[in-house]
Amino acid sequence: MEKKIYLDNAATTRTRPEVVEAMLPYFSEMFGNPSSIYEFAMQNKKAIDDARSIIAKAIGAETNEIYFTGSGTEADNWALIATAEAFENKGKHIITSKIEHHAVLHTCEYLQKKRGFEVTYIDVDEFGCVKLDQLEKAIRPDTILISIMFANNEIGTIQPIKEIGQIAKKHNIIFHTDAVQAFCQVDIDVNELGVDLLSASAHKVNGPKGIGFLYIRKGVRIGSFIHGGAQERGRRAGTENVPYIVGFGKAVEIAMANMKERTKKETELRDYLIKRILAEVPYTRLNGHRTKRLPNNANFSFQFIEGESLLIMLDMNNICASSGSACTSGSLDPSHVLLAIGLPHEIAHGSLRLTLNDEITYEDIDYTVEKIKEIVYKLRQMSPLYEDFIRSSAR
Amino acid sequence: MEKKIYLDNAATTRTRPEVVEAMLPYFSEMFGNPSSIYEFAMQNKKAIDDARSIIAKAIGAETNEIYFTGSGTEADNWALIATAEAFENKGKHIITSKIEHHAVLHTCEYLQKKRGFEVTYIDVDEFGCVKLDQLEKAIRPDTILISIMFANNEIGTIQPIKEIGQIAKKHNIIFHTDAVQAFCQVDIDVNELGVDLLSASAHKVNGPKGIGFLYIRKGVRIGSFIHGGAQERGRRAGTENVPYIVGFGKAVEIAMANMKERTKKETELRDYLIKRILAEVPYTRLNGHRTKRLPNNANFSFQFIEGESLLIMLDMNNICASSGSACTSGSLDPSHVLLAIGLPHEIAHGSLRLTLNDEITYEDIDYTVEKIKEIVYKLRQMSPLYEDFIRSSAR
Ligand SMILES: Cc1ncc(COP(=O)(O)O)c(C=O)c1O
Ligand SMILES: Cc1ncc(COP(=O)(O)O)c(C=O)c1O
Repeated sequence: MEKKIYLDNAATTRTRPEVVEAMLPYFSEMFGNPSSIYEFAMQNKKAIDDARSIIAKAIGAETNEIYFTGSGTEADNWALIATAEAFENKGKHIITSKIEHHAVLHTCEYLQKKRGFEVTYIDVDEFGCVKLDQLEKAIRPDTILISIMFANNEIGTIQPIKEIGQIAKKHNIIFHTDAVQAFCQVDIDVNELGVDLLSASAHKVNGPKGIGFLYIRKGVRIGSFIHGGAQERGRRAGTENVPYIVGFGKAVEIAMANMKERTKKETELRDYLIKRILAEVPYTRLNGHRTKRLPNNANFSFQFIEGESLLIMLDMNNICASSGSACTSGSLDPSHVLLAIGLPHEIAHGSLRLTLNDEITYEDIDYTVEKIKEIVYKLRQMSPLYEDFIRSSAR
Repeated sequence: MEKKIYLDNAATTRTRPEVVEAMLPYFSEMFGNPSSIYEFAMQNKKAIDDARSIIAKAIGAETNEIYFTGSGTEADNWALIATAEAFENKGKHIITSKIEHHAVLHTCEYLQKKRGFEVTYIDVDEFGCVKLDQLEKAIRPDTILISIMFANNEIGTIQPIKEIGQIAKKHNIIFHTDAVQAFCQVDIDVNELGVDLLSASAHKVNGPKGIGFLYIRKGVRIGSFIHGGAQERGRRAGTENVPYIVGFGKAVEIAMANMKERTKKETELRDYLIKRILAEVPYTRLNGHRTKRLPNNANFSFQFIEGESLLIMLDMNNICASSGSACTSGSLDPSHVLLAIGLPHEIAHGSLRLTLNDEITYEDIDYTVEKIKEIVYKLRQMSPLYEDFIRSSAR
């Protein structure tokens, strides 16, 4: 395979070789069911709890507050649906934002359509920051849950989580944050931030796809989402995915150990990329906040072009990128996030998300910038919109 | 590690080396998100659909009727909860059996307690066969779902699935079967059997833990259980677990290719084991049906002893076994399955499940039988119950 420049780390990441290595014994010699009574299987319980403890530490939680799930999406569903069920006698109102991941938005829709809940979707400003005054005004006596993502998966904007935590606490409302993109990218301390429930996913931090976790603050009495056996202290049923749990632990151990230097390097590269693109490609804007953004995220809109054509031509040049969320690629609707920050449809369509990892070099970025310049130029030459624009501005 | 005789294949199985081999590239070079637009990630879509097609064929379904889940438990939850939601306007009554796995029973409890459903739990006879006349009598105008497991995980009894399918069809009721234990062990054709929904799990067929599937018959309009992105044709959200999906496909390919000879061999060994134990250990009974049982399952009750002590002593002799379901080990309650077939508490407590695989030899079985004889003898010598019994029968 030719060298690829992989700039889609928000969609998913490569599973680290050390993580694969750590998982392998649990497929073969150590394949036992951790609920079994014989010695060789019971050792797996310890492997699970070691991983749980690494992960707990990464967000300042206690080991017993971490519950493994089958994905970040499942963790989001669990947080929302089980909170809804636990507190519906208190009220049936939920507050979230317009730029959440579909794992939250579609679960809210489900709660509205099938379970009689009301949901208020808070606006964001032009940088993608949730409007705190609007959020506080939206609170009602029957509000039981605030769910606001830690950092956005498309435009990388980091939300004022601590302030939201304070508002939630003041009004005695459960606060959930989808930290799938923020986990191991920004400092997280659930106690300092006042977070009650937090979701994350392994495949965004060089772990495997198909495992996540939900942090549940001790004392937050929500029920199960998946019912059955007594695994995960009776709160999440299903035979434990021992290899992936061990791998998730390993991935987090590595990611937390190098977080400071990694994110510093990524931030520098990101800023270099943003500076060059904005300076060298005309009619371009940066989406998201200039500084309150994930260290590895850049998101641009190029006027007069179709994002999809840009992606295909980047792929032909061995650059992997995306137009926003991977889940919606293939759909013709523009991103709900880009619409929420106020982009008109046709500009939202011409968007490009580049998300770095710590293997990306300045050389890679230079190559990518050159290719983007070439391709955007070419696509604009072919664009009737661009032609109209040039003609009208020449008048 | 010393050689273990692993006789707990109903709890979980070793992931085959060929399965691990098949998964490995999808952690490294082929790590892309299948929803992405660039070539290298889109190839993963094909890998997923190849696995889907292998699995569909194994149960006589169409490829598009298979939906991957994060476990067998999730598949059961999905089947029950989404059917309940889809048909609650028609009625809120569900029929199941007393010997289902907790993934079904606890989901039924949830539907009763939290969602206002009524559930009828059908009895089984002394062999663990569901009473068909009772089942048919339990049907009401508001019955929307019958959920009866294909084969029981503790005592191995295979249910009259075809007859149940006919009853369900006659009354226009959705029929779900938990086939986690039966899949790749007995012939399954969803059309011949009249099954609408079927759950299975990879780790019972030498695939990895943490992946399952739900078969949904075309035209059965149930919604999602996990809400979010558009994966699995919009019906099950969450980034696809590509390595495990590929591994599940590989495991099923191998299991289906050797099913006939494997189950023949296992059946012979099982019958040899049963014959020797019943002949050579006094005050012992076989639980489950003599012939309508899984090829690899044997389950015994030994009077006057505690199952747990037996297991520990078998473990000390390098034999891995279980007292019933792995999920309930550690709990002091006797198995709900053994109670349902009419065993008194004290006999249910002295039970042992041995479940074979195709690597087990006659030698292994001979060794195991000798050890069981020794240990049961020893434990009885120490048992006050046994002493009372001997004393009273000597009178
Ligand atoms: C009959 C039955 N149903 C469901 C399950 C749950 O499957 P999983 O462990 O994949 O969640 C099991 C095994 O644990 C089982 O034996
Ligand atoms: C913000 C956010 N939430 C949730 C998810 C879902 O995580 P998973 O793919 O593990 O289900 C993702 C990524 O897909 C995400 O970026």
